Amino acid sequence: MSNPSYFVVSREQHESLVRAAYEHRGYQPDESAAAARMCSEASWHGIRTHNALKALHLDELFGAGAGGCVPGAKVEIRESRFSAVQSWNANRKLGQAVAFEAIETCIRLADQYGSGTVAIDNAFHYLWGGGYVMDAAKRGYIAYTNCTSTLAEVVPFGGKFPTLGTNPHSWGFPTTQALGYPVVIDWATSEIAMGKVQQYRNENKKLEAPFGIDKDGKPTDDPFAVVALAPFGRHKGYGLGLLNELYGAAIGGSLPTLRGRAHEAEGTGEKTTSAFYFQVVHPDAISGGDFSKGRTQAENITAVLRDIFSHGNENCMLPGTIEANNAKLSEQAGGLLFTEAEIRGFHKLAEESEFEVEKWEPASLPTFTA
Amino acid sequence: MSNPSYFVVSREQHESLVRAAYEHRGYQPDESAAAARMCSEASWHGIRTHNALKALHLDELFGAGAGGCVPGAKVEIRESRFSAVQSWNANRKLGQAVAFEAIETCIRLADQYGSGTVAIDNAFHYLWGGGYVMDAAKRGYIAYTNCTSTLAEVVPFGGKFPTLGTNPHSWGFPTTQALGYPVVIDWATSEIAMGKVQQYRNENKKLEAPFGIDKDGKPTDDPFAVVALAPFGRHKGYGLGLLNELYGAAIGGSLPTLRGRAHEAEGTGEKTTSAFYFQVVHPDAISGGDFSKGRTQAENITAVLRDIFSHGNENCMLPGTIEANNAKLSEQAGGLLFTEAEIRGFHKLAEESEFEVEKWEPASLPTFTA
Repeated sequence: MSNPSYFVVSREQHESLVRAAYEHRGYQPDESAAAARMCSEASWHGIRTHNALKALHLDELFGAGAGGCVPGAKVEIRESRFSAVQSWNANRKLGQAVAFEAIETCIRLADQYGSGTVAIDNAFHYLWGGGYVMDAAKRGYIAYTNCTSTLAEVVPFGGKFPTLGTNPHSWGFPTTQALGYPVVIDWATSEIAMGKVQQYRNENKKLEAPFGIDKDGKPTDDPFAVVALAPFGRHKGYGLGLLNELYGAAIGGSLPTLRGRAHEAEGTGEKTTSAFYFQVVHPDAISGGDFSKGRTQAENITAVLRDIFSHGNENCMLPGTIEANNAKLSEQAGGLLFTEAEIRGFHKLAEESEFEVEKWEPASLPTFTA
Repeated sequence: MSNPSYFVVSREQHESLVRAAYEHRGYQPDESAAAARMCSEASWHGIRTHNALKALHLDELFGAGAGGCVPGAKVEIRESRFSAVQSWNANRKLGQAVAFEAIETCIRLADQYGSGTVAIDNAFHYLWGGGYVMDAAKRGYIAYTNCTSTLAEVVPFGGKFPTLGTNPHSWGFPTTQALGYPVVIDWATSEIAMGKVQQYRNENKKLEAPFGIDKDGKPTDDPFAVVALAPFGRHKGYGLGLLNELYGAAIGGSLPTLRGRAHEAEGTGEKTTSAFYFQVVHPDAISGGDFSKGRTQAENITAVLRDIFSHGNENCMLPGTIEANNAKLSEQAGGLLFTEAEIRGFHKLAEESEFEVEKWEPASLPTFTA
């Protein structure tokens, strides 16, 4: 098997187009720039499922194109007697712009109080939770986020009908001194993503295990029979998926089965927006200062990670390794790496946005073999 | 199959004996009382794996009997510039006493700042993480705890050797208005507990799935071949188990493979204690105040839970349901419910502690059929 070959696109070229595409849809320059930056970050780290094409597709399905997101909306900070936690009303502003701002606020609060939390109501999809916590972790902080996913696709453990979102959790931990990159734990609480099920359908293959749920509420490995998803790790992942719904409900989200389904919710008086929860903790605030052999905190984290990944565990991957390796490839190639199909997608997007179409001709782009 | 029959013991009788047993081992009255209270809470909620006999057994193996725990130790609060997060040195004080104090402090900080966090170094086993977050959730707070487990028994995903603790996470959410009890998500990050593997050995049965790891680092369902445990939910549960090690390392814990193994660590200069992490968030602080149909926050949580557990999901269990049902049984019986084997254990304990032996004769105890 030969190594895959990619087209190389500079961050600048990529972000210019993505910004133009968002502005073409009515978004303001600042929010378009935030969206473009997050798409670049995702592609730089090889997160193919969260690239710009996906982001813009989401916007069409649920966003500005469907009344789920409001270009130019302003975030309101709620009056509160609590200094280390803020409650925001995003007023359906584009998720990436809101999320970047939330992480900045959490960091500022953590610098002051030790921890900073921002809970966000009336939110719209932030795309890649791992990206925000990675950003904070690269800057030396412990960061966490969860959100309620747009659609309820997951069946509660022991149930029959999807009433939970794929509800992701993301944790970032500052391990750059130990590993060269932060640990980033970032996944949905379903066994598999619906997009992956579609991929198995396309390839006419069975799922690895009965990760899907069929129309009768039974587990199935037949991708064509899948109508909903099982939570990962039996009752344990189920609990984690439920947790986001509880945070969402406490923040201000409404019924999960109506979320992201504005048409079905019409006339019910129920909201259909998501909720975000962000938190940053300053590592100095939790340090006991009593590390073995006089190590610093960072040296202690290094020593612990060395112990975990010795004794025959040398070849284990850490959460965050794949993203870090992909970032190295992007670095080597000198830009973002896209497949031919992706470049075709961007070319079409450039045509639609009437922006720098000629730059997205495959023939005009350098290639890179990984 | 007939319903199981139990012996009923009043909380008072139970706590008197457990206090006496701890004091007999040299613990102070206040820490003995905290330990007894946590054991009562565990038994009240049917957590048979964390009853007083287990707690005292742990103390023998790793605690005062083995230098892991210091009766009468004083907790020191570290000087810090961060007001919403505290760092404590537990000086190996008994875990239950430290954990109750930590939750109280977190609640006090959350009342003031919106969130309160306590990180604890040089800690000794807090027994049942679910108990502390349940306590806070019953009082209306969102609570979380994790800790590094005493022994490294879990093999990192893709590895061969156990270098991670069974590292539990516990979340409590205030859902009493909606359900009559708080949601409590509380589990270890291994697929199965080592104690459960022993049970399968005793019954000469295969595990449900290859949840164990054999001496060559391969998954196995043969309980007799199990030398270590797999993380739950593949790479996802593995990430969660790793997270506790990172918190532990940042707080002050040392090498996981030496934790809880004072003899092996002798002369290495490495610590062998665990670390705790506690956090409480005030639900008012994350409320956006914009709930559909003018609902209150509690009413909104109720509406969301109703939606999740409708549509054919009426028979799902929530995390916390089993504990709540067990508490109802205890309530009905008018005391803590113990099996005959457990009563024999307590009788032996009473003899060893020279305390109220006659009260623990099975013949002198009422029985209850569930």
